[in-house]
Amino acid sequence: MQLGMIGAGRMGGDMTRRLLKAGHQCLVYDVNPAAVEPLVTDGAQAARTLSDLVGGLAKPRAVWIMVPAAVVDATLDQLVPHLEPGDIVIDGGNSYYHDDIRRSKSLKEKGIVYLDVGTSGGIWGRARGYCLMIGGDPEAVERLTPIFSALAPGIEGAPRTPGRVGKESTSERGFLHCGPSGAGHFVKMVHNGIEYGLMAAYAEGINVLRHANVGAEGRAVNAETTPLREPEHYRYDFDIAEITELWRRGSVVASWLLDLGAQALLESPDLAEFRGRVSDSGEGRWTAIAAIEEGVPAHVLSAALYERFSSRGEADFGDRFLSALRYQFGGHRET
Amino acid sequence: MQLGMIGAGRMGGDMTRRLLKAGHQCLVYDVNPAAVEPLVTDGAQAARTLSDLVGGLAKPRAVWIMVPAAVVDATLDQLVPHLEPGDIVIDGGNSYYHDDIRRSKSLKEKGIVYLDVGTSGGIWGRARGYCLMIGGDPEAVERLTPIFSALAPGIEGAPRTPGRVGKESTSERGFLHCGPSGAGHFVKMVHNGIEYGLMAAYAEGINVLRHANVGAEGRAVNAETTPLREPEHYRYDFDIAEITELWRRGSVVASWLLDLGAQALLESPDLAEFRGRVSDSGEGRWTAIAAIEEGVPAHVLSAALYERFSSRGEADFGDRFLSALRYQFGGHRET
Amino acid sequence: MQLGMIGAGRMGGDMTRRLLKAGHQCLVYDVNPAAVEPLVTDGAQAARTLSDLVGGLAKPRAVWIMVPAAVVDATLDQLVPHLEPGDIVIDGGNSYYHDDIRRSKSLKEKGIVYLDVGTSGGIWGRARGYCLMIGGDPEAVERLTPIFSALAPGIEGAPRTPGRVGKESTSERGFLHCGPSGAGHFVKMVHNGIEYGLMAAYAEGINVLRHANVGAEGRAVNAETTPLREPEHYRYDFDIAEITELWRRGSVVASWLLDLGAQALLESPDLAEFRGRVSDSGEGRWTAIAAIEEGVPAHVLSAALYERFSSRGEADFGDRFLSALRYQFGGHRET
Amino acid sequence: MQLGMIGAGRMGGDMTRRLLKAGHQCLVYDVNPAAVEPLVTDGAQAARTLSDLVGGLAKPRAVWIMVPAAVVDATLDQLVPHLEPGDIVIDGGNSYYHDDIRRSKSLKEKGIVYLDVGTSGGIWGRARGYCLMIGGDPEAVERLTPIFSALAPGIEGAPRTPGRVGKESTSERGFLHCGPSGAGHFVKMVHNGIEYGLMAAYAEGINVLRHANVGAEGRAVNAETTPLREPEHYRYDFDIAEITELWRRGSVVASWLLDLGAQALLESPDLAEFRGRVSDSGEGRWTAIAAIEEGVPAHVLSAALYERFSSRGEADFGDRFLSALRYQFGGHRET
Repeated sequence: MQLGMIGAGRMGGDMTRRLLKAGHQCLVYDVNPAAVEPLVTDGAQAARTLSDLVGGLAKPRAVWIMVPAAVVDATLDQLVPHLEPGDIVIDGGNSYYHDDIRRSKSLKEKGIVYLDVGTSGGIWGRARGYCLMIGGDPEAVERLTPIFSALAPGIEGAPRTPGRVGKESTSERGFLHCGPSGAGHFVKMVHNGIEYGLMAAYAEGINVLRHANVGAEGRAVNAETTPLREPEHYRYDFDIAEITELWRRGSVVASWLLDLGAQALLESPDLAEFRGRVSDSGEGRWTAIAAIEEGVPAHVLSAALYERFSSRGEADFGDRFLSALRYQFGGHRET
Repeated sequence: MQLGMIGAGRMGGDMTRRLLKAGHQCLVYDVNPAAVEPLVTDGAQAARTLSDLVGGLAKPRAVWIMVPAAVVDATLDQLVPHLEPGDIVIDGGNSYYHDDIRRSKSLKEKGIVYLDVGTSGGIWGRARGYCLMIGGDPEAVERLTPIFSALAPGIEGAPRTPGRVGKESTSERGFLHCGPSGAGHFVKMVHNGIEYGLMAAYAEGINVLRHANVGAEGRAVNAETTPLREPEHYRYDFDIAEITELWRRGSVVASWLLDLGAQALLESPDLAEFRGRVSDSGEGRWTAIAAIEEGVPAHVLSAALYERFSSRGEADFGDRFLSALRYQFGGHRET
Repeated sequence: MQLGMIGAGRMGGDMTRRLLKAGHQCLVYDVNPAAVEPLVTDGAQAARTLSDLVGGLAKPRAVWIMVPAAVVDATLDQLVPHLEPGDIVIDGGNSYYHDDIRRSKSLKEKGIVYLDVGTSGGIWGRARGYCLMIGGDPEAVERLTPIFSALAPGIEGAPRTPGRVGKESTSERGFLHCGPSGAGHFVKMVHNGIEYGLMAAYAEGINVLRHANVGAEGRAVNAETTPLREPEHYRYDFDIAEITELWRRGSVVASWLLDLGAQALLESPDLAEFRGRVSDSGEGRWTAIAAIEEGVPAHVLSAALYERFSSRGEADFGDRFLSALRYQFGGHRET
Repeated sequence: MQLGMIGAGRMGGDMTRRLLKAGHQCLVYDVNPAAVEPLVTDGAQAARTLSDLVGGLAKPRAVWIMVPAAVVDATLDQLVPHLEPGDIVIDGGNSYYHDDIRRSKSLKEKGIVYLDVGTSGGIWGRARGYCLMIGGDPEAVERLTPIFSALAPGIEGAPRTPGRVGKESTSERGFLHCGPSGAGHFVKMVHNGIEYGLMAAYAEGINVLRHANVGAEGRAVNAETTPLREPEHYRYDFDIAEITELWRRGSVVASWLLDLGAQALLESPDLAEFRGRVSDSGEGRWTAIAAIEEGVPAHVLSAALYERFSSRGEADFGDRFLSALRYQFGGHRET
């Protein structure tokens, strides 16, 4: 099948390669033409302009946009005038699903179908396959099944769930039509919200292991400091890289994230090259906002998000206010 | 190798079966003799009394205790008089590591070695193997390596971590000597603390998906109720069983817990047979307490724990106090 | 001074009474004319229609809207055609500040000034005075100073802050021009967000006191239940009404909310007439969303909000998922 | 009445002064004799040794210990040999209530009564009076009523709670016998736990106000950074000192802590002299542990505690693990 790809960055490039490998034909455009060159080596065709890209595709066309969420609308503004009724545009990036609802409605008036596809897999996707969460018109999804099949991991990506029989569902092959416009990015949003929570659970647990030797350190005794009541309970000098490796087999906390964590700690047991300023790329925020608007509790997902904010120093003024209050009522000075 | 097993319940029984299958010789005792019978069919020898159990083992002996944490001390009180210097006692249950420190010290005075072994794997361990986190005397651990090897999953339990070369470590085979007495249960404790956090992350995310259709429901408009500002953003009727199945392949949130979640939702998409009163068995509490005593933040792990308390109605009086306060200052009546 | 008041409910009615008492002249309109009658007894003039209301005021007019946030826009739609350039409209309810920004911009095109006034004080405001957080055009705020002064508590509402000298600021009198349009409701929003956090802090602490006798209760001993390690530490049967009364004097946690809590517990020590389904009226949600969008941590404010959601059973599906997971991996059945 | 005071620091000194002013007779001992001298000027008698202190008091004696919690046991070891049956020892510091239970039991064997008195009021107590939470033998508490009355604020410390009639209770005068040994410090512990929660609620809310201008700042647009969707909603440059002053009158969040916060911000609007490393002195930790052991949720109180840990950099290793994970799965580099 033929696909136009806009964006030849880390994600767009690797997805193109996976599609090419599966026998699909890809025309690729990037604002930076140099980014497309390596893909040409792998069998893609380069498009110098969006007009070229659209012109090079047989009708009805399918164009996949894989650019930062912040520039999707600008990309659409330039792309859409070249499209015709019956064409399909796919946003495979990390758009907010509100934007999907708006865009699909607006494009529908032009007869163009807009699909939103949440794409998980990161830099591993090229080899492992991408998990695809799809929202929008069911017929268009059906039409693009060969593309989704090629990008997704396939049923061999995991042992079959006991109880599932017969022909595999698309969910078992790694892609799913989740619902109407926005549904794909909604599910991807929640996926990332969960991801933040999982990561925070590991990070906090590992931090507890890391500090399990505090009983062996001396602590000052004064009115400002809580003495450790039973220092003999905190005299463990754990090898955290070994422990994460251990948990990979047979434990309840085994996961792909743990696999990566074990690898990170193997490469750098003290993680000294990281400063611990943790970014967030939007979905964690949107998941928390969705929980709030739905009126459902999300203690863990929000806490995971806030810990990232704190890691970047964003609690600072509040913390200083606490110190100021302690000074006011108790004359406590910071240590 | 020869092992005495005390406790023929779900865990003790399956561990015995796994050991027998690996060619080890097991003598089994249970306060309920009937529980031992099925194991005899599988090749174990039954011991009618603790004295029989100890008497039937060649010196130096190894006795594995697999009973509820609350009755380990009582079991030791009855067992220890039969033991001799050089014998090893293993507590493989969910003891608090404080107890391990105390017990190992006390038994050491008698020349008996006490090992604490955190055991993960649940009802799946018999087939998958058990992940073993071990604390105590290194020589005793060395001596029991054949037992640990047989119980653990082995290196085939997961793909090798990139960068690991040469002979596999015991961590790669699924067991690890984590440190001195208590270290095994400390690591198991944190493992379970993380487990609570992971489970809560999935549960919260899935709950957000479950309520994604609130925009399609009418809501009352009054001073007590927040109207949903953009109901058109919450009109998704997700198939959560399919979504969890989808995430098993290629996504960042793939894990063994997710595998089980997908299976649970396949069997019962609405989970109608559960009431949602979630138990906790101690380790989640102890992990939070350890974080507090070490002085490290554990927002996620604690929140996961508290959500379980809340699920059992334990926030009740506080909630009523909130309603009472709202009535006092605003005349607000509960809806 | 002359003021038109739309809304003769609990808040609008009491504010009118406070204005009348201060010598101001009030015309009052309510969709339910019967609601206005008691205010007429207190000296207000009744307006049968919005046209009457506007017609009865000398130019430039000032009209205060005190209706549920959900119907402010509809009220404005009916009111604005009667107004003229130079008139001032005040929204004193609990509007989302986003709406203020939109409305003030739209009304400005008609020469009408829109002020947003966050009003705190509840059913106590008539006697204590209302705390007024004001956003919008500074000149209009200046013009309405007599109204704000009459509604606010005045400097006698609290002892002067040490270090404040000379003529009192309006903040010391209980009203403040916080900034441009939306600033008043933004500050009121954060005020309510903090209120939720304060209430939750008290509620949780009181719940800890309430359960301080768990050591005197028997608990089952099984693999599913954590035994209380030191039951002798939890044998207190506290008189919580007395404790909250105690804390009102000399303690660090003394506050107006505590005053109300002490009163609530005096009236009903067991709070048996409350079910503990705690409503939230929007601002707590918006504060959390603002924190998320600003990228600052708000663990406490969000947790307080989520606890309200949980009190209404909104965690239910997630909790059932947790029970289902526990059953899958450990065969645990709910107790 | 006559009282021996051990400890002439900030708290012990000011309490002595308040007692002297009420006409009581105080003998004061401090490990640093120079600390006692200023109290002698105020009318106290100095004791050079503990033996002198005890010898100077008429039987049955009452000795109040006001020293850091970490040295109470050492103080008791030196003091008790001088005491006789019938004497009363009061620990007025911040002891863990577990220690009270142990100490009172041990001293009871010697016929000595041990009272635990949680004391709130900080550096303001001398003028405002101290809020006293008392645990232990009721007769001893009765005997010391004149001392408690003098230290406590008295009923004039707050307006009477509506519904309270007749002779005032001791709770209305600012002291309360809360229950058996440990009850005083248990209630003080929860008081401080609540205090942490209240402080965090204000700090978070104020931090949201402080960042309300993020829409006016430019933000980078890249795949790692979430763009602010509606920057026009975050263009407020709030005067936080004025807002906290405003809230002191008529608002729902008025409190003594807010009074202090307004003062702190008046003195230093940017709080530039604070670094925001917030100490915790034990009770917040113990409250969270009590909640966990009782099995009741305490999301807010724990989060407040953890935020203090984070302010001191204790999340560091966990944060670096998060950055390491992000690098592993997405190739994300820290910004």
